[in-house]
Amino acid sequence: MSNKNIDRNALEALLTNRFFFVPSFSIYGGVAGLYDYGPIGSALQQNLINLWRQHFVVEEDMLEMDGAIITPAEVLKTSGHVEKFTDFMCKDEVTLEVFRADHLVEAVFEARLESHELAKQLSQKLEVTEDKKKKSGALKPALLDESTVAEINEILAKIDNYNMKELGDIIVKYDIRNPATGNKVTPPVEFNLMFDSSIGPTGNLKGYLRPETAQSQFVNFSRLLEFNNQKMPFASAMVGKSFRNEISPRSGLLRVREFMMAEIEHYVDPNSKDHPKFQEVAHIKLNLLPANVQQSGSTQITAMSIGEAVSQKIIDNETLGYFLGRIFLFLEKIGIDNDRLRFRQHMSNEMAHYACDCWDAEIQSSYGWIECIGCADRSAFDLTVHSKRTKEKLVVRENLETPIVYDALVCNLNKKKFGPKFRQNAKPIQDKLESLSQEELAKAKEEISASGKFNLELNGAVHELTTDLMTVDMQTFKENVREYTPNVIEPSFGLGRILYSLIEHSYYTRMDSENRSVFKFNPLMAPFKVLVLPLLKNASFKPVLTQIARSLRSMGVPARVDDAASASIGRRYSRNDELGIPFAITVDFQTIEDGAITLRERDSTNQIRSDINTILDLVVKLVNGTEVWENVIKTHPVIEASAE
Amino acid sequence: MSNKNIDRNALEALLTNRFFFVPSFSIYGGVAGLYDYGPIGSALQQNLINLWRQHFVVEEDMLEMDGAIITPAEVLKTSGHVEKFTDFMCKDEVTLEVFRADHLVEAVFEARLESHELAKQLSQKLEVTEDKKKKSGALKPALLDESTVAEINEILAKIDNYNMKELGDIIVKYDIRNPATGNKVTPPVEFNLMFDSSIGPTGNLKGYLRPETAQSQFVNFSRLLEFNNQKMPFASAMVGKSFRNEISPRSGLLRVREFMMAEIEHYVDPNSKDHPKFQEVAHIKLNLLPANVQQSGSTQITAMSIGEAVSQKIIDNETLGYFLGRIFLFLEKIGIDNDRLRFRQHMSNEMAHYACDCWDAEIQSSYGWIECIGCADRSAFDLTVHSKRTKEKLVVRENLETPIVYDALVCNLNKKKFGPKFRQNAKPIQDKLESLSQEELAKAKEEISASGKFNLELNGAVHELTTDLMTVDMQTFKENVREYTPNVIEPSFGLGRILYSLIEHSYYTRMDSENRSVFKFNPLMAPFKVLVLPLLKNASFKPVLTQIARSLRSMGVPARVDDAASASIGRRYSRNDELGIPFAITVDFQTIEDGAITLRERDSTNQIRSDINTILDLVVKLVNGTEVWENVIKTHPVIEASAE
Repeated sequence: MSNKNIDRNALEALLTNRFFFVPSFSIYGGVAGLYDYGPIGSALQQNLINLWRQHFVVEEDMLEMDGAIITPAEVLKTSGHVEKFTDFMCKDEVTLEVFRADHLVEAVFEARLESHELAKQLSQKLEVTEDKKKKSGALKPALLDESTVAEINEILAKIDNYNMKELGDIIVKYDIRNPATGNKVTPPVEFNLMFDSSIGPTGNLKGYLRPETAQSQFVNFSRLLEFNNQKMPFASAMVGKSFRNEISPRSGLLRVREFMMAEIEHYVDPNSKDHPKFQEVAHIKLNLLPANVQQSGSTQITAMSIGEAVSQKIIDNETLGYFLGRIFLFLEKIGIDNDRLRFRQHMSNEMAHYACDCWDAEIQSSYGWIECIGCADRSAFDLTVHSKRTKEKLVVRENLETPIVYDALVCNLNKKKFGPKFRQNAKPIQDKLESLSQEELAKAKEEISASGKFNLELNGAVHELTTDLMTVDMQTFKENVREYTPNVIEPSFGLGRILYSLIEHSYYTRMDSENRSVFKFNPLMAPFKVLVLPLLKNASFKPVLTQIARSLRSMGVPARVDDAASASIGRRYSRNDELGIPFAITVDFQTIEDGAITLRERDSTNQIRSDINTILDLVVKLVNGTEVWENVIKTHPVIEASAE
Repeated sequence: MSNKNIDRNALEALLTNRFFFVPSFSIYGGVAGLYDYGPIGSALQQNLINLWRQHFVVEEDMLEMDGAIITPAEVLKTSGHVEKFTDFMCKDEVTLEVFRADHLVEAVFEARLESHELAKQLSQKLEVTEDKKKKSGALKPALLDESTVAEINEILAKIDNYNMKELGDIIVKYDIRNPATGNKVTPPVEFNLMFDSSIGPTGNLKGYLRPETAQSQFVNFSRLLEFNNQKMPFASAMVGKSFRNEISPRSGLLRVREFMMAEIEHYVDPNSKDHPKFQEVAHIKLNLLPANVQQSGSTQITAMSIGEAVSQKIIDNETLGYFLGRIFLFLEKIGIDNDRLRFRQHMSNEMAHYACDCWDAEIQSSYGWIECIGCADRSAFDLTVHSKRTKEKLVVRENLETPIVYDALVCNLNKKKFGPKFRQNAKPIQDKLESLSQEELAKAKEEISASGKFNLELNGAVHELTTDLMTVDMQTFKENVREYTPNVIEPSFGLGRILYSLIEHSYYTRMDSENRSVFKFNPLMAPFKVLVLPLLKNASFKPVLTQIARSLRSMGVPARVDDAASASIGRRYSRNDELGIPFAITVDFQTIEDGAITLRERDSTNQIRSDINTILDLVVKLVNGTEVWENVIKTHPVIEASAE
């Protein structure tokens, strides 16, 4: 279980000081929404990606791709991003400061509610808590009437769902202004969230930085299917940066302009969304928050097995359920606290019009419940629109074991006479005839048998098709191949958000005289696996320190040496606990004599002692997950810690 | 040794058909210079990155970062990219088609030389080879006089070094036109190669997509040094995409608009560029092409040990030599053919003005010798310019064991009188006095002792500084700290270029009845490590196939199953040889009875047979490099191959 009541200011200071991540280009003043990951942050990110690849790509045999970030406008017009990937923006009428409209409304309303609370407490002569005073800051107490409070609360609950006009009306009705200046703001306008650029030197080819990795996968569908030897179902996957030009980024790593994502596109027969490995996850209990519970105004979580949820149709199908299970196992593996993880179903008004079902894995942190992974059934939408736009078939062709045999009416034309008779009209007439439905063909057949001709209307003119030019006949067809556009189930991971959540879930304070901070990253996720340090600074330790660090590194175990003369061993242990290093190897004077070293585990601070080879063997096993500390201390007695 | 005479058209067709990589957004017509990596390409890229991380970051204890791609203009103004990261462009005067000026000159001159050759052969009644006919295509034979041929050849040899005016003069003098239309072209203009965009909604903050990862590392230097506990020397590293808006991309993966790079910035004391691990690489022999050899007009390679090259000052210093050695070992590990690898030193006219030495690792492919890794000593240039621009110190402070003691003249001001007397001029006068050199201070001291005052000229005015305002005195200083700006040695890897070179070096044709293509990727680099297949399609094989594939994947070994009913076992072996899969496990009817399976090695096509567990253990060892096939066949007899 993780610590829910963290001091975020202290955590943020620690993350900056120890270079987990910092605002990019800080010495130039920084840029909102851009972050640089230092050695700890980037190793956490890389370990997250490696585990993700092993858990999804390798174990599930997915086809990974790496597609271009720069995307021509045409592709994103088709996908709908050019038109719809927008937020609403308004400006201070005087200073022209820019706001994201919904955020501004939220901020102003929240301030008003706080002022109201303060006024109520004062009027009731209640004691105003210190915390409240601090939070309300320079706020003046201002009582609202209760119906206004109710209206405001209702608007806040629905703040994500207003369109441009509705937000504009709210701004006018409630006189929402720039809190800093008191100036009015302009009516909201749409702002597209894609970074744009120009490809090549002509200025004629507009491009965008991709807002997601999905489109690269969809446009390559036929190649992916071919690579998979035409076998269905299968999934493609991609890990990489995507971009979103936020109007006003906030909440640290949770809302940024450049972010690492990992997306899976699982292609499935729309007629059969069962999953062959479903039984392996059916028993897993998830914290579910279904749509109907939310619609009734509750956020009550139900713990329910995936098997039950699918059989009750709470989760739409086995494949979606299977992925929710795999997502759960992945988050468990990296160290997310299950008590602070829930799966929230989208309500119908949240979902894209084409989606049939969508679940977000939400992780709780000091910012509240944050969507970290979306898992949507996107139906056949994407493949259909790209296919329509490019005229390239993006379909599966399946050989039928039993061919489908059926009769249908067809037009048979006498080409020799037809062309010369209609000349330039021949092609349009033929196209029109071929587009006739079975019902229309049946009528045409009747007309011919009744009058010996069929009068076809086309663009206002009537063309007479006599029986020497055309007949309508019943023919037998046999289809050996079924052709269909697969549906896509898309688990989409925001890796920065998962990373930040994990950092909060891993953060605790060691309850001793120093109250130092510790990150309890597990050995798979920990950036450095082993700390190597001498009891104190002494030249005689150097060769053995170097030998140990080298051995570990050559076996692929990242090791950090801390041999600073200025810091005590206790100080050095604790400053490396702040980096989440799970194991520490200490060299002391005894080592020079007998070659024995101590191994310390971070969270228990227990130490064992043995010869170098034994300890190194143990460490490799502890790091790759084939051994656990609880077992180690059963066979290796815990020793008295040297003065920490 | 790799095959130097590859058929590039055949290779390219194979790479596209098997989805190694393809032009991005092909179904939309593609975009020049952008490529999507399919399952094979992206796994090769990922394996390359993983091996790079292990070889450099982990084994050398570098501090990896992951910085933002979007970079504010100010940072790239300081680094010089806004001004200097350009190519020259000209346009067809009529059609406005765009050309990179040097490429256009090259293309036109090469065509003229070919026409000339053709004309010469015809005039000498020599037989024109079929190959020549084909290559010259629609070219008309046109004889040039020999002095023109010599001029053209000289220009082609220097084509990379012309400035804008020189290129313009060549275009006019030699009447270079658009070969497709015959139209004249406009004089060359500079075109900046960075993609630009706008950060945030105001349009006031200009940004670029980074052209290299280096700047993110430099601006974080102080944090990196702090993370390293202030210890020098050390290195930071970054892997990620960079961007270059090429005027006319060509040569496949070798010149693209979006590319994966890996860069190391090694920070070193300018007074001591020795390297503690130099002895470990000193014996390695490299193919060197030093600057002086090139200047004498030769491209003769010298094989020389790194130790000798450094001691002869051919390579400037130990640290640079150490990195060249590590680069060599890395390229050897991934499978680059050493006979087609050379280290070429930059000539003085190629180097940036601040660089002291620079070596490119060039790899030979069908495109010629291509720069794949640059290894430059960038001196203190970058840290100095960023520091100057931002006023943030980017320096190392080193405690001196023996303090430096010295005497120097200083100005002592009587602040009480000085301020009131000079008022608004006081600050500029003080600044000026503090900027005086020791020589100037000596003169001032003389002037004061001679006349009782010092006349300071500042912006045209003379200020009289009498002894009650200022004295110049000799003072003793003691410095305990040395402060310096480190030099940077930067190995910079173009991963796409290395990848493509490796693909060419790994490509061969199996000399049997089918002449199928094979990629001999080693087990570390191979995208899939193991092919799992049944002798033929039969339902009874399914459980054991599934079990083997699952076991391998859960141990982190990417495995591909090929159980297509339509293809013979031989056909399936060879179509997976095209993917470079080193090992194949085959299940047959005997397996169902005795649990034995065969293991085939790709290049020898030798097979051994044993029980499932033995084979899986062997495979894991073969894949992680702790076992080699040559040893395996000593203890496991090679069996008769089943009908391939």
